[in-house]
Amino acid sequence: MISFKNDYSEGMHPAILQALAQHNHSQEEGYGLDQFSQTACDLIQKQLQHPSSQVFLLSAGTQTNLVAIASILRPFEACIAASSGHIATHEAGAIEATGHKILTVPTDDGKLTPSMIEPLLIQNSDEHTVSPKLIYISNPTEWGTVYSLDELKRLYSFTNEHDLILYCDGARLGQTLIHPDTPISLSDYARYTDGFFIGGTKNGALLGEALVLNRVTWHQHLRCQLKQRGALLAKGRLLGITFSTFFTNELYEKLARQALERAMQLRDGLLKLDISFRVEPSTNQLFPILPHAVITLLQKDFGFYVWEPATSEESVVRLMTSWASTPEQIASFLASLEKAMQQQPTFLPTLNQF
Amino acid sequence: MISFKNDYSEGMHPAILQALAQHNHSQEEGYGLDQFSQTACDLIQKQLQHPSSQVFLLSAGTQTNLVAIASILRPFEACIAASSGHIATHEAGAIEATGHKILTVPTDDGKLTPSMIEPLLIQNSDEHTVSPKLIYISNPTEWGTVYSLDELKRLYSFTNEHDLILYCDGARLGQTLIHPDTPISLSDYARYTDGFFIGGTKNGALLGEALVLNRVTWHQHLRCQLKQRGALLAKGRLLGITFSTFFTNELYEKLARQALERAMQLRDGLLKLDISFRVEPSTNQLFPILPHAVITLLQKDFGFYVWEPATSEESVVRLMTSWASTPEQIASFLASLEKAMQQQPTFLPTLNQF
Amino acid sequence: MISFKNDYSEGMHPAILQALAQHNHSQEEGYGLDQFSQTACDLIQKQLQHPSSQVFLLSAGTQTNLVAIASILRPFEACIAASSGHIATHEAGAIEATGHKILTVPTDDGKLTPSMIEPLLIQNSDEHTVSPKLIYISNPTEWGTVYSLDELKRLYSFTNEHDLILYCDGARLGQTLIHPDTPISLSDYARYTDGFFIGGTKNGALLGEALVLNRVTWHQHLRCQLKQRGALLAKGRLLGITFSTFFTNELYEKLARQALERAMQLRDGLLKLDISFRVEPSTNQLFPILPHAVITLLQKDFGFYVWEPATSEESVVRLMTSWASTPEQIASFLASLEKAMQQQPTFLPTLNQF
Amino acid sequence: MISFKNDYSEGMHPAILQALAQHNHSQEEGYGLDQFSQTACDLIQKQLQHPSSQVFLLSAGTQTNLVAIASILRPFEACIAASSGHIATHEAGAIEATGHKILTVPTDDGKLTPSMIEPLLIQNSDEHTVSPKLIYISNPTEWGTVYSLDELKRLYSFTNEHDLILYCDGARLGQTLIHPDTPISLSDYARYTDGFFIGGTKNGALLGEALVLNRVTWHQHLRCQLKQRGALLAKGRLLGITFSTFFTNELYEKLARQALERAMQLRDGLLKLDISFRVEPSTNQLFPILPHAVITLLQKDFGFYVWEPATSEESVVRLMTSWASTPEQIASFLASLEKAMQQQPTFLPTLNQF
Repeated sequence: MISFKNDYSEGMHPAILQALAQHNHSQEEGYGLDQFSQTACDLIQKQLQHPSSQVFLLSAGTQTNLVAIASILRPFEACIAASSGHIATHEAGAIEATGHKILTVPTDDGKLTPSMIEPLLIQNSDEHTVSPKLIYISNPTEWGTVYSLDELKRLYSFTNEHDLILYCDGARLGQTLIHPDTPISLSDYARYTDGFFIGGTKNGALLGEALVLNRVTWHQHLRCQLKQRGALLAKGRLLGITFSTFFTNELYEKLARQALERAMQLRDGLLKLDISFRVEPSTNQLFPILPHAVITLLQKDFGFYVWEPATSEESVVRLMTSWASTPEQIASFLASLEKAMQQQPTFLPTLNQF
Repeated sequence: MISFKNDYSEGMHPAILQALAQHNHSQEEGYGLDQFSQTACDLIQKQLQHPSSQVFLLSAGTQTNLVAIASILRPFEACIAASSGHIATHEAGAIEATGHKILTVPTDDGKLTPSMIEPLLIQNSDEHTVSPKLIYISNPTEWGTVYSLDELKRLYSFTNEHDLILYCDGARLGQTLIHPDTPISLSDYARYTDGFFIGGTKNGALLGEALVLNRVTWHQHLRCQLKQRGALLAKGRLLGITFSTFFTNELYEKLARQALERAMQLRDGLLKLDISFRVEPSTNQLFPILPHAVITLLQKDFGFYVWEPATSEESVVRLMTSWASTPEQIASFLASLEKAMQQQPTFLPTLNQF
Repeated sequence: MISFKNDYSEGMHPAILQALAQHNHSQEEGYGLDQFSQTACDLIQKQLQHPSSQVFLLSAGTQTNLVAIASILRPFEACIAASSGHIATHEAGAIEATGHKILTVPTDDGKLTPSMIEPLLIQNSDEHTVSPKLIYISNPTEWGTVYSLDELKRLYSFTNEHDLILYCDGARLGQTLIHPDTPISLSDYARYTDGFFIGGTKNGALLGEALVLNRVTWHQHLRCQLKQRGALLAKGRLLGITFSTFFTNELYEKLARQALERAMQLRDGLLKLDISFRVEPSTNQLFPILPHAVITLLQKDFGFYVWEPATSEESVVRLMTSWASTPEQIASFLASLEKAMQQQPTFLPTLNQF
Repeated sequence: MISFKNDYSEGMHPAILQALAQHNHSQEEGYGLDQFSQTACDLIQKQLQHPSSQVFLLSAGTQTNLVAIASILRPFEACIAASSGHIATHEAGAIEATGHKILTVPTDDGKLTPSMIEPLLIQNSDEHTVSPKLIYISNPTEWGTVYSLDELKRLYSFTNEHDLILYCDGARLGQTLIHPDTPISLSDYARYTDGFFIGGTKNGALLGEALVLNRVTWHQHLRCQLKQRGALLAKGRLLGITFSTFFTNELYEKLARQALERAMQLRDGLLKLDISFRVEPSTNQLFPILPHAVITLLQKDFGFYVWEPATSEESVVRLMTSWASTPEQIASFLASLEKAMQQQPTFLPTLNQF
């Protein structure tokens, strides 16, 4: 069984494992005050080229979102997100559990625009409604689509004008750093968002996300908030070693590029088989539309999610590649798919996952 | 510089590192549904010998306390803790941040008794007060003292009679499993508490705590609570491998015993030098009382916390040993101490840490 | 200026004022333990004919919703509401501020059906999502429409089957008690919901809502929750006197009927003028569609809300009658409207309220 | 039975009742935007003589404390209060339910001094602890003692120096406005606190507290916070009429003076009978120490709280006078007490309330 379910099926990149082993016995200060965390933050800071930014290392994406958002917003302030946004759907109400409402907008491709946000600002403008304050985007989105640098700048200009906060969930941020058409640098994110995070878990770390807050007033008590939300690791060295390895010799970008190369190999193979996509693929998440009979055959040997119905006979599936995916795995999937397409029976099987 | 500041200065025990390396490339289900987490929970479950217990793997102590307590209590219910209790002092208001008050009792040695709890139940018994519900103990306590099995049974019998919940913070639980005078087994904890956790971070893990909930009604949605509080790791394998290694060949107990042996070596050395203690040491935390001048001399070569003033010329310091402490480190500290005692100047230096 | 903005523009019904004056100097126990609160609860309880119901008196609708919902739900549990539901739109994030997500469904008339709820149960069924638990309805809805007794029974049967909770916001419950086509008694609400409240503020009280919880396990600590949320009045007599006056000689129903009679007078007059409605009126809220020019003319002498655009030249307005509305006020409005319809200019004025 | 249990046993002062009746039928804007609320705030504002202050009308003391504190503090910030402070004891964990810890200091008379606060600042100064920010005092305190104007100034100067916030619970503020020895004006409170409230409920209102926030940045969204916490009354006229009546012809001060006069009559009578006090009385709360046998006899005809044990044979009781207490009620109590003192049996009865 080969899994394309997600980009966190394997452990960590060997370089991180090696660094962990190498420094395993050094005595370090606890709770993120170790030398490795310091180095990691310095390496990232250097790329940000933005004096009012500061870096904080956390363990997981939902944790990062909830700590950041709860520390930024006042009690009456709310988030605006695409209705497919991760905080709106798959974080078990983590943001609401800190007391904040999420207002959502339906989108086709997971991307927000100023014109989608504006009506919510008008509808929510007196004391009987929450005050929309933080605009949550993910780049890439949950549909694998990306905001271009221009789109990001336009959003940031809009949020600035309206005294809003632009926050970017970067669980797969690496994909945008190395995007062939519209790469966005860390320095861009520092200048054109108010806060974002650099996802490690889905790019080859055992765990770890680097939160960057671009407003000085938010820095001082963030570590206290980490502690309060259970997010401060006693052995911060794990995070420090992970991110200092990532940002040495551009490993972080290399791993993102590896995942993308496998995704493009997969896309090209799918296109050759005349498969169409729910959204055009440009990162390591692909959403091809497959006949139910084919899906059932593929499920014997491959792991992936059936995402949503497309027609009565077809569904959208999600295929995800990672830094650890091999060309052989992709080739094997494509071969099986081709075979399944030929065998495709005329009856409609019931699917396992709906 | 040798540190006795805490028991989490080093990385992980080599056996855990080796297991991580060995399984690094296997593809696993995410979010704690991997094979290693299953194995770890099964191994622990076997020792609990208690069908209504269930095991959950988390990353850190504060996280474990807040997830467990917030998932157990209803909004009007409160905790009772010793005023030295970790949740009352050093968790940055994590429990209150989930909405629950902590009522505290001053104690001399960090241990609660039924007679300390009873007055709080009487004072807080109508609708103008919170309803005390969860009795929080730590074993060992923050003073390194331990509840004996008899004391634990007496507390549990008291909490049962009063429809209360007994919860034990086991950040250093290993020390009580192998305590020479009054060992308490995991099966005892399953039978004589309503919930507890088996601390990994302070006993040789890179991170990890195994929460055990002994009431069936608390199990069903705990994983959802983990997600909501940002405590569910995408690569749960780290926790699974850690605890399955711990509970194979009794590694967990061995590491606790190693830390205790070093502590007893240290205690014996201190006693030989006629040093007295704030509380009698019986686990890996020691609280000797040292003259300020000696403290200042020792601080040049050794890391440790000055805990609280004892007299105008002496302070209590905290020395902590771990699975990674070596006999040589202890010997070196004792030698330096002996030398410092002889050199001790007559004037009172100002201390760095107060 | 005559206001049809809402049903809480005037003070209290004179009978309540008189009762307040009559008992003003009696010494009473504080915090809802006065004799009047007891009498009020007894009078309501008698009508409920449901032993497992209990009555609690609160001050305001949002307060009642937040106290009830926060006391019922566990942290990981969520509400489902129509997207027009009061808790979802006009309570300033009060439910989220207690930690609970609200999942919403778009509706045409503000009413939920089992088939609208079901997909949300399927989409939110694992530990990465909240657990939908409380179905929030308002009867009448925010669009002035009503659930019939049959619809209520069908919803309750659905929620029971799915282990859900049915909660009814009764800010204007009186309108459903005396509904000409499908009256629902308090006893029906006790049997076919898990909780609901009997709105006083919008039916002639100075303030006050009577919360009824129909499950025994929710009763014990509700008063403590009231205190914790700032909802326990020291002089509960105000609430007690209000509701004991309401439920003596059927005053509560009489006032609802008065408001409805004025609404029907208004509806009939509007129909005579060939005005159409956004939804068919059957309670004291009317949503006629008026030309912008007419609206502007009416705004000189009458207060009402412009609710939403209908066409480029017309908007939906909200007109609300109350126990205190007089036949003369209605007649005056209709006369002005008729005149405005005749005067209606051909150009499109800009509206004040959008 | 005559009650000295508290100062909220009766209804409202007749002048308020009369004003309610007079304006009962005027149509007003909802949610505190009525003309009476505006007038009330203007009248108070005039006395504050402090441009950066703003007034908000709420219903109850706990509600006021929780709305104010939750709106002021950031999530990691905590309160410091005397351990007898109302928020620390008798508000059912209302502050913690909004996520904030209360650090407490034992005091003899309910009053905080800078030297009591300072150690808590030192103990709570890193990211593992909460950040103490808001100093909560009540004036008068829960022991009926008062901070003098000098003491208030000293506290305010201290909190300013340490970047803290001074907040005063004024449930019985009237007693300090008319204190014979050390009167403090509303203008003083505006200048020497950051926030406080003017208690209505315990000074002759049916309900109502006027919150004054003295920092401009806190004003803008306070009404949204009121709504979110369920504290915004649809018919704000009740609060507006109450406070505009209070601050016309100095009624507020007159009622406080009436309560104080009765308290002094009671104190003088008690002193004549050689009764001693737990703390010296100077407001409308008295804490005399009475023999258990006497208490039991008095409980037949008078309502009051037995507060705490004094000796094995005596207890502290709390006697409270109000604007509605009559000279005859006081005289009757004193006569019964004198008689009871003479009859006092030699055996020790069990008390009802402990």
